[in-house]
Amino acid sequence: MSLIVQKFGGTSVGSIERIEQVADKVARFRADGHDLVVVVSAMSGETNRLIALAHELQERPVPRELDVLLSTGEQVTTALLSMALHKRGVPARSYNGSQVRILTDDAHTKARIRQIDDQRLRADLAQGCVVVVAGFQGVDEQGNITTLGRGGSDTTAVALAAALQADECQIYTDVDGVYTTDPRVVDGARRLERITFEEMLEMASMGSKVLQIRAVEFAGKYNVPLRVLHSFQDGPGTLISLEEDPQMEAATISGIAFNRDEAKLTILGVPDMPGTAYRILGPVGDANIEVDVIVQNVAADNTADFTFTVGRADLERAEEILRRIAADLDAREVRSDSRIAKVSVVGVGMRSHAGVASQMFAALADVGINIQMITTSEIKISVIIEEKYLELAVRTLHSSFGLDREPRDENTA
Amino acid sequence: MSLIVQKFGGTSVGSIERIEQVADKVARFRADGHDLVVVVSAMSGETNRLIALAHELQERPVPRELDVLLSTGEQVTTALLSMALHKRGVPARSYNGSQVRILTDDAHTKARIRQIDDQRLRADLAQGCVVVVAGFQGVDEQGNITTLGRGGSDTTAVALAAALQADECQIYTDVDGVYTTDPRVVDGARRLERITFEEMLEMASMGSKVLQIRAVEFAGKYNVPLRVLHSFQDGPGTLISLEEDPQMEAATISGIAFNRDEAKLTILGVPDMPGTAYRILGPVGDANIEVDVIVQNVAADNTADFTFTVGRADLERAEEILRRIAADLDAREVRSDSRIAKVSVVGVGMRSHAGVASQMFAALADVGINIQMITTSEIKISVIIEEKYLELAVRTLHSSFGLDREPRDENTA
Repeated sequence: MSLIVQKFGGTSVGSIERIEQVADKVARFRADGHDLVVVVSAMSGETNRLIALAHELQERPVPRELDVLLSTGEQVTTALLSMALHKRGVPARSYNGSQVRILTDDAHTKARIRQIDDQRLRADLAQGCVVVVAGFQGVDEQGNITTLGRGGSDTTAVALAAALQADECQIYTDVDGVYTTDPRVVDGARRLERITFEEMLEMASMGSKVLQIRAVEFAGKYNVPLRVLHSFQDGPGTLISLEEDPQMEAATISGIAFNRDEAKLTILGVPDMPGTAYRILGPVGDANIEVDVIVQNVAADNTADFTFTVGRADLERAEEILRRIAADLDAREVRSDSRIAKVSVVGVGMRSHAGVASQMFAALADVGINIQMITTSEIKISVIIEEKYLELAVRTLHSSFGLDREPRDENTA
Repeated sequence: MSLIVQKFGGTSVGSIERIEQVADKVARFRADGHDLVVVVSAMSGETNRLIALAHELQERPVPRELDVLLSTGEQVTTALLSMALHKRGVPARSYNGSQVRILTDDAHTKARIRQIDDQRLRADLAQGCVVVVAGFQGVDEQGNITTLGRGGSDTTAVALAAALQADECQIYTDVDGVYTTDPRVVDGARRLERITFEEMLEMASMGSKVLQIRAVEFAGKYNVPLRVLHSFQDGPGTLISLEEDPQMEAATISGIAFNRDEAKLTILGVPDMPGTAYRILGPVGDANIEVDVIVQNVAADNTADFTFTVGRADLERAEEILRRIAADLDAREVRSDSRIAKVSVVGVGMRSHAGVASQMFAALADVGINIQMITTSEIKISVIIEEKYLELAVRTLHSSFGLDREPRDENTA
């Protein structure tokens, strides 16, 4: 008997019929003797409906009140799933973020979890109850309702699994696992049996549809085995854990990730002196805008050009801030471009294999794609390219790194 | 400058447009220098939508989870109204029942308020904030979400007004005040300027569309002046308070109340001995079923017939209980009838005027209506009649007691 945290997203609980199916699945796990904590999102469409109501009132709704509004979506699902479980003779109790209590900071609409009180949940589990928890939400020190940002339900699930030291955290979704790349872009994309947290993190920009980055970080930090599964199809899914898949050692690259949700900002002709990078990125970070790729070049005239990418939704705000900074720093110019995309090759095998970068750049050059920015990590190489070449780049790299072929060991098994 | 608690029901906040109108009204009151606490219901239709979802899953949804589900409706409205106020430059903060905190007992779906913590609200008011509170809900000692039953938002408003010692509790609704009777039944029904808590309580069975009985009781107990007003029409409404209207002393009867939401249960041939009434009504009360009219007659054979009325929604449950009791008591028979209605004449003036009862019975007899049960209080006489005669009875009594005529003092004013 093990303790499993299961998370069902909006599509999986998008109708009463689907909630009944989820209840069937949860009831089967419980009949097998597992202790279960089930985290649910709002029914699909509900969050958008609520946001639309808010936008009828305010273009930029007050964040505190937006959280009060949106948190109701998940609460509705917890009540309905608990009813569906009771109907099957399975005792269940729903909890919202404030009831659990999932303590967060006070950054409304993108709060971070600080602490989880597992006392009530453990008491319910000890009594044989299935515990149903509203994902995506928490409460700050003052008792204000907070939300973790879209997709935050994954984070809730992992954080609960960590707090409860669960044996596995299962993320049910509308795909049957993590793929070498997005199957909608590349026909030959394959499901991975296993992937490491590190790789998943690097893949997550692509996998925003599969798993939230913060959830994977959290899982990695607390070593919570994470499994991505299809809500309504049986199958092993993809296990995300600390260990590498022994079968996969042969493969250098596990997947091709991409992201079209970024925009590029460049500040030209900044005086090249210590502290400049901080003076530029400090205010951007203070405004809670996440920066991804950062590149700086020094020109001959002792000025620097500084380029970075942000989420497209933050572009307008970031540009405003940057224009103020440019005036302060007496910089020459600020440019922005939202028609960019990021493509990355990812793999823990990269560590022990040279030549991945040159193979990547050569493959892109072969099909005439110009690279605007390059950034690398231990297990990932990313390039920023013009958005319109995105699909071509992904297909080219997927094939160039042999990802459409079955791994050798699986064929011989 | 005074502290006013305002309550807006589901119709008044039934769309974004209406929420904007409510925000306009609240902003005007605030511009006049008042401190404001605004209690809101779920947007009209929302509670029914949620109940329908629950009923797709369970015929009788688990009460704890039903409360979790329904409480989201009011929370949505609090967030939207707060946004609408911010849009008008009026600082506002929303609170749900658990945040306030409105402590209730644990009788899910019909909880009663035990205590209100006014600390956070007072702090917000002191800072110039309008406080927007979710009506209809609270939280029990264990932190479970509870609801006060339909219409409970009125009770929330009055309880807050009492806790905050507000100067007035204004209930905004879709009628412009309390009428001598339902204008849909009697054309000549008139709006009353003032009415006492006592009278309003007795009228409330009719006035379920205007005010919840519990809210009036609460207001009377803590002497909270209560005003019923139209949400979108200007006008003085009806003030409900301790004092009688001096102009109204001339009138014996203030109004005709009626209720078709009752059903009658009779247990026949009960041994007539001490404790029988308790043995019958004790278990009914224990099941949280409210009993209204109770009548007992002793027959010649030393057995008694015992009749009482309950809400129609409780009839089935009450009848089950009564059949068990009948078996225990060796009673002859249990009968139930849901095709009944209650009609009452109400007025504090009745105390000093004899002959109200005989005038009432004579008027009904004149139009051939048979009276099944009679019950009286100091300021009310009620009869149970066959449901189909309800409108005829109300019109007959309204005219017989001169309620279609303007009060004399108003004519000479």
